Amino acid sequence: MTSTLPHNILSFVHYLLSQHLKSGDYVADCTAGNGNDTLFLAQRVGQTGCVWAFDIQEMAIHNTRQRLNNADLLAPVQLILDGHQNIDQYIHQPLDAVMFNLGYLPQSDKTCTTTANHSVLAMKKSLNLLRPNGLLTVVLYGGHSTGSDECLAVEALARQCKQQQVDILRYQFANRPKSAPYALIFRKISDEIVFS
Amino acid sequence: MTSTLPHNILSFVHYLLSQHLKSGDYVADCTAGNGNDTLFLAQRVGQTGCVWAFDIQEMAIHNTRQRLNNADLLAPVQLILDGHQNIDQYIHQPLDAVMFNLGYLPQSDKTCTTTANHSVLAMKKSLNLLRPNGLLTVVLYGGHSTGSDECLAVEALARQCKQQQVDILRYQFANRPKSAPYALIFRKISDEIVFS
Repeated sequence: MTSTLPHNILSFVHYLLSQHLKSGDYVADCTAGNGNDTLFLAQRVGQTGCVWAFDIQEMAIHNTRQRLNNADLLAPVQLILDGHQNIDQYIHQPLDAVMFNLGYLPQSDKTCTTTANHSVLAMKKSLNLLRPNGLLTVVLYGGHSTGSDECLAVEALARQCKQQQVDILRYQFANRPKSAPYALIFRKISDEIVFS
Repeated sequence: MTSTLPHNILSFVHYLLSQHLKSGDYVADCTAGNGNDTLFLAQRVGQTGCVWAFDIQEMAIHNTRQRLNNADLLAPVQLILDGHQNIDQYIHQPLDAVMFNLGYLPQSDKTCTTTANHSVLAMKKSLNLLRPNGLLTVVLYGGHSTGSDECLAVEALARQCKQQQVDILRYQFANRPKSAPYALIFRKISDEIVFS
């Protein structure tokens, strides 16, 4: 056997994106948090690519900057202290991938979470920004009440996407509690997406 | 972007297994059918590996043999005209992967399907035969009544597997009808599995 399937959902999303992204790609991290995904994306796209990373918390932007700096990977990243629902104010290029990791900032204020309305709006705008064959990944946490509402809203958005325009795969552990994190991977097929 | 995520569940299972298997591996196709998966497995493990392929229908074994013959890949394959629930009578080596593609033989008698009891028994025996880190893949079709019973039985089996002993990921399109095919990928973690 040559490789190992990852044990957790976020690693699985990284595993899929690793095979999808290449140097020079344009990508967005819509939930910078502590910079885990931003760093991963910067490593994949390198100095010739670009990563736009959004967060509404100064602490998150600070932590992400420090993490990128330590890895000498600040150059390809634009850190943006604003909500991801405003993504279209900052990005006007077609994107190869967009990542969302919903919920609250780890080791921080658990009442400051992403919200269903903003997340869904940001995802719709991101789907429009993606180039055909581009991926939008979202990791969802149903374990807290805001998270559970957000799961419902994102699942409703998924059902609004026509299968001719977007493939949407759900990745979920079948032998863990229903509240365990899971992922949806949107792959844009057509140039334009109409939300029905 | 370097690669494309497949559009259908079976291609996605092949995509994951392609990164998992190597020359010389030992694998089983528990539902040979028309030989699609058997041929795929034979290509991956090559002349130094071994594929055991099971089917209860002579037509399936015939079609699979012909397909392998055309590709000059008969050598690593043992074709077995027997139910997959008897897998432990034929295989005594640790396996790297086992594939199940449930339902009926395409272009054939739709009343001759795999059944919940036999499939679950075969899957339990296969999980015991897998080496740690080995994969069991199963593609499920809930669109016909036997298939729907089988989905329930396989999901019940999944819930019986402790998460310390087996990782089980569900791959499912989020914007297709509930009856659309989906996959479960079991990855064995511990040496022994106790079905609770």
